[in-house]
Amino acid sequence: MALDRLKSVTQHFTGNTPPPHPFDPLSNAEIESAVSIIRKEHGKLHYNAITLKEPPKKEMLKWLENQKLPLPTRIADVVVIAPGGKVVDGWVNLQTGKIIKWESLDGVQPLITMEDLQIVEHVCRKDPKVIEQCVISGVPAEDMHKVFCDPWTIGYDHRFGSDVRLQQALMYYRPHIDDSQYSFPLDFCPIFDAGKREIIHIDIPEIRRPVSKAKPNNYHVDAIQKEGGYRKDTKPINITQPEGVSFKVEGRVIDWQNWKVHVGFNYKEGIVLNNITYNDKGTVRPIFYRLSLAEMVVPYGNPEHPHQRKHAFDLGEYGGGYMTNSLSLGCDCKGAIHYMDAAFVNRAGDSTTIKNAICIHEEDAGILFKHTDFRDDSCIVTRGRKLIISHIFTAANYEYCVYWIFHQDGTVQLEIKLTGILNTYAMNPGEDTKGWGTEVYPGVNAHNHQHLFCLRIDPNIDGPNNTIFQVDATPGAGAVGSKENPFGNAFYAERTKYTKVKQATSDYNGATSRTWDMCNTNKLNPYSHKPVSYKLVSREVPGLLPKEGSLVWKRAGFARHAVHVTQYDDKQLYPAGRHVPQTSGEPSKGMPEWIANGEASIENTDVVLWHTFGITHFPAPEDFPIMPAEPMTLLLRPRNFFVRNPALDVPPSYCSTPSQIAGKSQVLDAADKMSKLVVTGSGAECC
Amino acid sequence: MALDRLKSVTQHFTGNTPPPHPFDPLSNAEIESAVSIIRKEHGKLHYNAITLKEPPKKEMLKWLENQKLPLPTRIADVVVIAPGGKVVDGWVNLQTGKIIKWESLDGVQPLITMEDLQIVEHVCRKDPKVIEQCVISGVPAEDMHKVFCDPWTIGYDHRFGSDVRLQQALMYYRPHIDDSQYSFPLDFCPIFDAGKREIIHIDIPEIRRPVSKAKPNNYHVDAIQKEGGYRKDTKPINITQPEGVSFKVEGRVIDWQNWKVHVGFNYKEGIVLNNITYNDKGTVRPIFYRLSLAEMVVPYGNPEHPHQRKHAFDLGEYGGGYMTNSLSLGCDCKGAIHYMDAAFVNRAGDSTTIKNAICIHEEDAGILFKHTDFRDDSCIVTRGRKLIISHIFTAANYEYCVYWIFHQDGTVQLEIKLTGILNTYAMNPGEDTKGWGTEVYPGVNAHNHQHLFCLRIDPNIDGPNNTIFQVDATPGAGAVGSKENPFGNAFYAERTKYTKVKQATSDYNGATSRTWDMCNTNKLNPYSHKPVSYKLVSREVPGLLPKEGSLVWKRAGFARHAVHVTQYDDKQLYPAGRHVPQTSGEPSKGMPEWIANGEASIENTDVVLWHTFGITHFPAPEDFPIMPAEPMTLLLRPRNFFVRNPALDVPPSYCSTPSQIAGKSQVLDAADKMSKLVVTGSGAECC
Repeated sequence: MALDRLKSVTQHFTGNTPPPHPFDPLSNAEIESAVSIIRKEHGKLHYNAITLKEPPKKEMLKWLENQKLPLPTRIADVVVIAPGGKVVDGWVNLQTGKIIKWESLDGVQPLITMEDLQIVEHVCRKDPKVIEQCVISGVPAEDMHKVFCDPWTIGYDHRFGSDVRLQQALMYYRPHIDDSQYSFPLDFCPIFDAGKREIIHIDIPEIRRPVSKAKPNNYHVDAIQKEGGYRKDTKPINITQPEGVSFKVEGRVIDWQNWKVHVGFNYKEGIVLNNITYNDKGTVRPIFYRLSLAEMVVPYGNPEHPHQRKHAFDLGEYGGGYMTNSLSLGCDCKGAIHYMDAAFVNRAGDSTTIKNAICIHEEDAGILFKHTDFRDDSCIVTRGRKLIISHIFTAANYEYCVYWIFHQDGTVQLEIKLTGILNTYAMNPGEDTKGWGTEVYPGVNAHNHQHLFCLRIDPNIDGPNNTIFQVDATPGAGAVGSKENPFGNAFYAERTKYTKVKQATSDYNGATSRTWDMCNTNKLNPYSHKPVSYKLVSREVPGLLPKEGSLVWKRAGFARHAVHVTQYDDKQLYPAGRHVPQTSGEPSKGMPEWIANGEASIENTDVVLWHTFGITHFPAPEDFPIMPAEPMTLLLRPRNFFVRNPALDVPPSYCSTPSQIAGKSQVLDAADKMSKLVVTGSGAECC
Repeated sequence: MALDRLKSVTQHFTGNTPPPHPFDPLSNAEIESAVSIIRKEHGKLHYNAITLKEPPKKEMLKWLENQKLPLPTRIADVVVIAPGGKVVDGWVNLQTGKIIKWESLDGVQPLITMEDLQIVEHVCRKDPKVIEQCVISGVPAEDMHKVFCDPWTIGYDHRFGSDVRLQQALMYYRPHIDDSQYSFPLDFCPIFDAGKREIIHIDIPEIRRPVSKAKPNNYHVDAIQKEGGYRKDTKPINITQPEGVSFKVEGRVIDWQNWKVHVGFNYKEGIVLNNITYNDKGTVRPIFYRLSLAEMVVPYGNPEHPHQRKHAFDLGEYGGGYMTNSLSLGCDCKGAIHYMDAAFVNRAGDSTTIKNAICIHEEDAGILFKHTDFRDDSCIVTRGRKLIISHIFTAANYEYCVYWIFHQDGTVQLEIKLTGILNTYAMNPGEDTKGWGTEVYPGVNAHNHQHLFCLRIDPNIDGPNNTIFQVDATPGAGAVGSKENPFGNAFYAERTKYTKVKQATSDYNGATSRTWDMCNTNKLNPYSHKPVSYKLVSREVPGLLPKEGSLVWKRAGFARHAVHVTQYDDKQLYPAGRHVPQTSGEPSKGMPEWIANGEASIENTDVVLWHTFGITHFPAPEDFPIMPAEPMTLLLRPRNFFVRNPALDVPPSYCSTPSQIAGKSQVLDAADKMSKLVVTGSGAECC
């Protein structure tokens, strides 16, 4: 069996290297192999992406069931830009060395890579028309090396369409090399043609806003030192794990506290979690086949041209994986850390690596459960632990810290922290923001915006055939005094089964504390007689504020509703389309196509739940010049999945029973002995 | 000055003891002093409560402004039950030794103390009619020592009214002394008269439900050992603070990271935070005069008699302070801990102490802010810290863990974890719960319920004259293509000023991500030109599900809406009334009285914001036999209060500037050196 697995990958792995798990991202060697196969046939190309084409789910489920079966074929999913700007989608079979798909696409633009981004600034600095606009803005022509830009995809601009690959350059000025440029936005917006490598147009506002004369607003060491220095009263908190961590790593499979999860990664979504199972007293029960952030959109709310173009799809247009930070020990993560690297292709076709792209570590999670019996003082206190699989990506100005958190009680939590720097625009002294933004610093207008994430949940609740129910907390029928509700206190969980795709297109309802249950209706909990399920509990669910028919509404079809449910389809991974830049939204790609057949059955079959959540951000000066992390979170909680609290066997810190208290006999006292009392009044000391 | 302060309290403090801060809870000595003063005049009484009567706010604000002024008078607020059951509200001036108020009340019942609770079980066990019912339920008469009850206040029952002090006994059976009784609920409900000390009635359901024959469902050590024992793969996480904590303690004032807060405590609310200020670059700015959980109610949703009576007001009917746990080092809290004790009076008039009632400690808070410039790799990572002031109280079956959390970015967070054990009721094999509850274990019906907390926020945003605005994220006016919204993307924060009490009676709106701003409209942020403010961000805001006119709707007036705003009044502390047990709700006490004059102005004056939040709980077997902690949280965030991120001077873990990167010159690297890499594959080891 082990031989079978090895045989199928001998082409790429020799000696002691184990074959990759079918969910493993492509290795550097596999990426290089794909490039070499393509190069032989097609010569020099610009590589946009090479990533794992995940095995078909049907095949993969069989393999997961019986790992003696041959390994699914390793296939590289390739996006290249051929000379002349032609975009090609290809598949390369890494076992046979054959290109099995090579499809030229028209009117399509693949995402913008970090290399694509870097070029624009250099071109802007040399462009005479950009220099002219800088001078008009108050930046001397000889200061062009102090001019910077965040090059965004253009989103979509009807004047230019989708055939020419474009970026819009959001312009900034740095008076000094170490100043934050976001305090000095410029008011015009050059448009860059990636094919010609030149600026083809500049959007110039009717009202001009010269560069701010305010003094810089910085957050680096020198700036803080000049303002009085760092606070000195923060004493260290040391977090150590002398016996190591509680998880095991086999390849990319993490085994922790009955959980098993395969940690994947790709250039678009960043972390992908596959085949999440829970060992329930010896029975390995599948829960999710795949979890990922599949897309996001950040619409800005200023109606003035050209700000309507500001609605970045940070995953589909830039790639949450491509923009991932290389994390560092003791900064981004404390404790005992396991890192994983990420492998990509660059424009030239070389493989590249982001070291420490994924951080895996444990944290204390406070009290997991506690109870004291008031009459006899018998008591249990059990502290919890969590496993955190995280990455952080920088989307130009913003940082997104993504934490996938596993709890001992069977909960999976997704926490996202937003930090980094606000996208800013120029304003004149005394200018009215008209409510579309906030003057966070003199001359700096930070526009209202939303961060709307699309969580793709592929449930596998005791098997792939699942059904989604909408659950609303609802008062019982009957008025006060009626026979069915004599005292008026009745309430219950109203459950609406989604049988067809069209029913599942649903919004959040705060008034009913709406949740969604992913159920296996073929299996009932033996005690509650309710289907085994996981519940999506999500409370940060603003609607898309831009109106129906607006550009972002058309392009971000997934964001029109909080929940969509689709029949599983291997091809449906990206809810704003596979290639997002410069889509017009006519027709709308991704989700709107997938739900077009509203009559399709989603009952007791293999389904995917797409959940749009996030926040609406009205900036304030507190968010500047760098934003304190704003957290948001959601939970996937077991409900009627286990027969009892699955964490009862987590060792307690303290446990006593009534008979032990009465008999003064030995109780369990395993309190953490490292904890200390603070000497009252002395503050800085422990006794 | 110091002499003045000392002089005014010499009656109670001698030698080196400093005088109490006016917000300090009464000490044991002060409680004993109050009792001795009352005893002289009124002889033997049953004491229900003795607590600090907080000084009038007007006087207190003056004193806080100028602490050379004489200390406000120390007054004990007293509730006693005189022979014959007469309830008296009194005030004792501890400086003069005089009783300054002694008011007999009719038809009123003060809260149920732990001593009151303990009596009922003993009476039940000896009552022939209770024994008879036990036998009917399948409990042998000789097993009455195995019968237990959680005595609740009766809530309100129209058959008995408010003049007789009553408790309802929720009955349970423990086959063995160490079994959890909540797996063996009995189906009848004795009613106890506290005056007569006897059972005066038993509510017996029409359908009888004999005690369950299921095997016990326990969570203590022996039970877990028998089922295979504890998991052994959880390695320790040590949290140590070798240089001590970052906060200073002066009396009960905590000084941490620019925050100052006085930590009070009383028998009803538990922790009370007073005079919360922030030192903003040398200017001490008031933010909140007082924060506390003022009330809560837990309505249950089963319409069958007598379950409509199950709607505990855990603070007003039992006391969050009275039920507070004595916390223990390394169990409830890890790290370097400062504890505070709580002093109370017992029934006989002796002072009592709960040791370690309040825990004060710091925790690492992960990334506070981070940004990497993609073009030059300059980067800052700053880790945050939080200060947590917490207590845990046990309300019979349930545990409430209350965490008041201070952040370095100016945010105050309230986190509550619910744990403990579900309230349970008997059910017959195969019985239908009709959706009003869940069979969490054979024979155990856990009814649907809500936990609705009332947070009392007394804002003091740069002074007491504040105004509340409702803020709704709202699309801009004008259709797509209109002049004002050409692209349809406009959105803004719609602000509704609450000028009158009646306007402020408002509900949550998830669709608009509704928040509430507490503003000082007399002071504008110099950059944004918006009023300085703190924003209430709360997303767990279910409405009260019992209907208008239901008993709990009448009694818990505060819970009818998410927000009420009142003019400040020293007398208005308890939104369900001062004495909650056995209120009929006709008329409704507390909030409905306070907002009766809807025309009262709440604009630019001293106001209090009352916020009802919480969760609706539909139980599942995972919650049993002891519930994994379910967290909920809300934030009070500075908005336009500071001119910039107030945490910029928190020492970073890493900081580099573009010039340092370019010149390869020294960057700041203060990464935590205790963090370690996990050796891949080995799991349990660090290198």
